[in-house]
Amino acid sequence: MSGRFITFEGTEGCGKSTQLSLLAGRLRAGGAEVLETREPGGTPLGEDIRHLLIHAASGQGMCPQAEVLLFAASRAQHVREVIRPALAEGKTVLCDRFLDSTTVYQGAARQLPSKEVNALNAFAVDGCLPDLTLVLDIPAEVGLQRARQRASDAPDRMEQEELAFYQAVRQGFLDLARAEPERFAVIDGTSSVEAVTTAIQSVIAERFPEK
Amino acid sequence: MSGRFITFEGTEGCGKSTQLSLLAGRLRAGGAEVLETREPGGTPLGEDIRHLLIHAASGQGMCPQAEVLLFAASRAQHVREVIRPALAEGKTVLCDRFLDSTTVYQGAARQLPSKEVNALNAFAVDGCLPDLTLVLDIPAEVGLQRARQRASDAPDRMEQEELAFYQAVRQGFLDLARAEPERFAVIDGTSSVEAVTTAIQSVIAERFPEK
Repeated sequence: MSGRFITFEGTEGCGKSTQLSLLAGRLRAGGAEVLETREPGGTPLGEDIRHLLIHAASGQGMCPQAEVLLFAASRAQHVREVIRPALAEGKTVLCDRFLDSTTVYQGAARQLPSKEVNALNAFAVDGCLPDLTLVLDIPAEVGLQRARQRASDAPDRMEQEELAFYQAVRQGFLDLARAEPERFAVIDGTSSVEAVTTAIQSVIAERFPEK
Repeated sequence: MSGRFITFEGTEGCGKSTQLSLLAGRLRAGGAEVLETREPGGTPLGEDIRHLLIHAASGQGMCPQAEVLLFAASRAQHVREVIRPALAEGKTVLCDRFLDSTTVYQGAARQLPSKEVNALNAFAVDGCLPDLTLVLDIPAEVGLQRARQRASDAPDRMEQEELAFYQAVRQGFLDLARAEPERFAVIDGTSSVEAVTTAIQSVIAERFPEK
């Protein structure tokens, strides 16, 4: 499988980072060149922006407009510096969060107008869209609990959100998946790691029959 | 004079920071409450973004799309956290660069499509536009020379630009001023500091006759 762009989405604590890394291992074992990356981040500039978004003291009190613009800035650099070149070299790119997180977190959950969020996403990605987006779906309560359990010291800016926010995020991903079934696959993220892995494997086999 | 929003624009080295501070002193002497601020920056988040844009190692190789999105992020926060509240309290806000710098630097000079740059600006400022924009106009050669003279150690990312970039920027500001003469005033920035001060003073007297 070469030159495919696969993104992992879902609420905090849904298991996407674990599953991304497991899929990368399996694809490499099958001979594919795989790039594992994440958003916000994925470039030196993007990682600095990630710090502003998640950890920096200056990010407290950030308005939703600044937030969505920072995500878009990180993504614009990521697409041009890393993702598009890797796809052009035939690599499979696995990305932990991408534009759908912005649609859902800043659009559906923070309630910025979807027209403007979509325009920002389009400007940032310049047509570079995933071939497959895996949504690892878990109930909002479970996500919130998992995210808080692993919060090391103090919860970060995203982990401070309340249950209603997690619920809006979950629903947002499900709505996107329903609207664009040819790109999305929804996986039950409450099963065991092994069961989720198997489910992802069959989606990949079905969507990319060449491998 | 209260609740006015005045921005200073021009190429590097045009003298706008000096003149902004002189005008702030005169307005305060006349009894006005004045807020001096700048872009990118003006808030803790904005100053961190400014660092990414101007000094950070991670900013080398930044694509024009990420650059314009970072400027917009800084501006969105600045408007909502600082500028609009200050204007609402009746303060006069003097800002060193604002949305016109983005129109000119990222639009005219970096050649991003003006439709998209304008949409980003509109999203960031949400209708909070200057009452007066002073363009301190100097020839590109003079600006480049002044910027390089004061570059302390190594020139920063903006100071590394070439003459053609400075020329495009200068022309960009002049074009904006021609298109919107009721908001802009172009001041000859090659005169002495005192002469520029006097010129600014008469523009202010003419545009805001209440003071």
